[in-house]
Amino acid sequence: MKTLMVELGERSYPIFIGQDLLKSKELIEPYVKGTQVLIVSNTTVAPLYLEQVEALFADFEVRCVVLPDGEKYKTLEELNKIFDVAIANNFDRKCTFVALGGGVIGDMTGFAAASFQRGVNFIQMPTTLLSQVDSSVGGKTGVNHPFGKNMIGAFHQPEAVIIDTNVLDTLADRELSAGLAEVIKYGLIGDFPFFEWLEKNIPAILNRDATTLMEAIERSCQNKADIVAKDEKENDMRALFNLGHTFGHAIESGMGYGNWLHGEGVSVGIMQSVYLAKLLGNLSQADFERIAAIFKLAKLPLLPPATTEMSKEKFLNLMASDKKVQAGNIRLVLLKSIGAAYVTGDYSASLLEQVLDEYR
Amino acid sequence: MKTLMVELGERSYPIFIGQDLLKSKELIEPYVKGTQVLIVSNTTVAPLYLEQVEALFADFEVRCVVLPDGEKYKTLEELNKIFDVAIANNFDRKCTFVALGGGVIGDMTGFAAASFQRGVNFIQMPTTLLSQVDSSVGGKTGVNHPFGKNMIGAFHQPEAVIIDTNVLDTLADRELSAGLAEVIKYGLIGDFPFFEWLEKNIPAILNRDATTLMEAIERSCQNKADIVAKDEKENDMRALFNLGHTFGHAIESGMGYGNWLHGEGVSVGIMQSVYLAKLLGNLSQADFERIAAIFKLAKLPLLPPATTEMSKEKFLNLMASDKKVQAGNIRLVLLKSIGAAYVTGDYSASLLEQVLDEYR
Repeated sequence: MKTLMVELGERSYPIFIGQDLLKSKELIEPYVKGTQVLIVSNTTVAPLYLEQVEALFADFEVRCVVLPDGEKYKTLEELNKIFDVAIANNFDRKCTFVALGGGVIGDMTGFAAASFQRGVNFIQMPTTLLSQVDSSVGGKTGVNHPFGKNMIGAFHQPEAVIIDTNVLDTLADRELSAGLAEVIKYGLIGDFPFFEWLEKNIPAILNRDATTLMEAIERSCQNKADIVAKDEKENDMRALFNLGHTFGHAIESGMGYGNWLHGEGVSVGIMQSVYLAKLLGNLSQADFERIAAIFKLAKLPLLPPATTEMSKEKFLNLMASDKKVQAGNIRLVLLKSIGAAYVTGDYSASLLEQVLDEYR
Repeated sequence: MKTLMVELGERSYPIFIGQDLLKSKELIEPYVKGTQVLIVSNTTVAPLYLEQVEALFADFEVRCVVLPDGEKYKTLEELNKIFDVAIANNFDRKCTFVALGGGVIGDMTGFAAASFQRGVNFIQMPTTLLSQVDSSVGGKTGVNHPFGKNMIGAFHQPEAVIIDTNVLDTLADRELSAGLAEVIKYGLIGDFPFFEWLEKNIPAILNRDATTLMEAIERSCQNKADIVAKDEKENDMRALFNLGHTFGHAIESGMGYGNWLHGEGVSVGIMQSVYLAKLLGNLSQADFERIAAIFKLAKLPLLPPATTEMSKEKFLNLMASDKKVQAGNIRLVLLKSIGAAYVTGDYSASLLEQVLDEYR
């Protein structure tokens, strides 16, 4: 087992990465305060792992909420079901919420924990590659609004993140690839050696080689933890994690939540941002092709939906509600080179339109 | 104009108290970041003051949301209307929300500001006595759940609290009395000289004497600010503000939100807690009568609803979901004497039942 720390002073917490962690009461019990535990999961994960996780908390009063699976259920209405169960069972301020699922469950459970009685503890048990390497670490929680992704939420750090790599055995191939989009992102924005390592090791990851998977997760979490420790509330550096996300969120929202996986939108969104960086002269044609090749290797989509489904105007409208917009200016994360990124609003509107017209 | 500071380090902010403050652009503009302002008000206050407040922000992009008036609309569903307007108008992370109304509007706007894009700035402009002396100060925000008051929320401090005492001219007599319940509370829990001052000055307050009202508001806010500065997240001292609230919330919720005003529930709830403190030997019969007399002077109710409407069992069920409950134990704020309070779970269940049986 590997242990990483997210260093946030009083709110520091460990990320545990290893096999069979969801069977270890000794590991998890120290992070449960109070006497009541509410496990939140979804209809896909619950039949596989809920019984096992309930057994971890045999010494506590345990209640469970099983939500429907999918990004389209990441809403205030579904969130309310978590509150219903907690309140109906007289859960108190010392209770602990446990997120057992992917990014949607982690984000919703975290926001429910942030808001229930103005804040209770929670533990992340991510069950997808994407949530293990990205969304479970860093304390961003929330739900979607019909007009924009993650528009309603809170910063609320977990007590611990428990990454049991065994659960990836039951993850669908498409979900594994989607997770790789965020893994590759860490290489692109700040860790060129990791990018090179991924170019060689993605086939082994897709074959679910345990050692390679574990190293990919560990290096991703380390990248994330380092930046979160420096910029918890996304004043500057943390925004780099959003490489490709302004385009990607527009695709996810515009195509109907759940039809494109988050990682698929991010893959295409990164390629769109890479095309823009090439137009700006930051990246060469060879860089562009090298980045396209790694997403292809990961079996991820490279091109946006057809213009009949996502016109330029639809992209621009949806991108205008992005959380990085300031005074009407759509700020984007762009690459300076492979392994270095920056946030900017300093590009001409016509160049963005050119990307949306040409890169199809 | 008087200025008090709530001392919370980086999150410190001023409370301004005086006449005609809602006409002063110079006072308010320094507290608006960004270029966009969303004013949230209700159907009672908006016709009286919204135009005036909109004029304060003539140099900004202003949007307004007018919610229905009343505690029963303090829900997640109504909260969503605030997000709808902010997102439809592409409000960004630097925008400022403004709460123009009583406690319900302040709590909802504050929670919307806490959650929109994971946190934006907001300004409190309380228009009832209750919100001026209590709910606008200290950063508690939230909405109700059908089974419990303020169960869903956040700690989110405003940039400034603007208390224009002129707006009390249009406040209904019943609302003025309800506000006095929280004013009297500050005397009871920690400020005996203020309690004595109130015994003499409540008639002048009910006559809306401007100088007396201003002093009552200032002394109340000072009491609140002092304790919030020491215990922002309610680990110990801050819980004292909840004197009578565990009973009072049960009445508000049990009788249907909005039928009893919050201050009316608090008045009766304090009397119930005072009756318990008398049974415990903390207070004499003379103390009991003295406290009853001041609530009567303020034209507030003293007795709980009839047992046919609020049976003992209904009280106990509703009180069991209070936010101060720990491991099933209903913790109450009790008086040691007039001017001193403490939080305890150390009383026999039969004594609480005796209060609910006898004090009718």
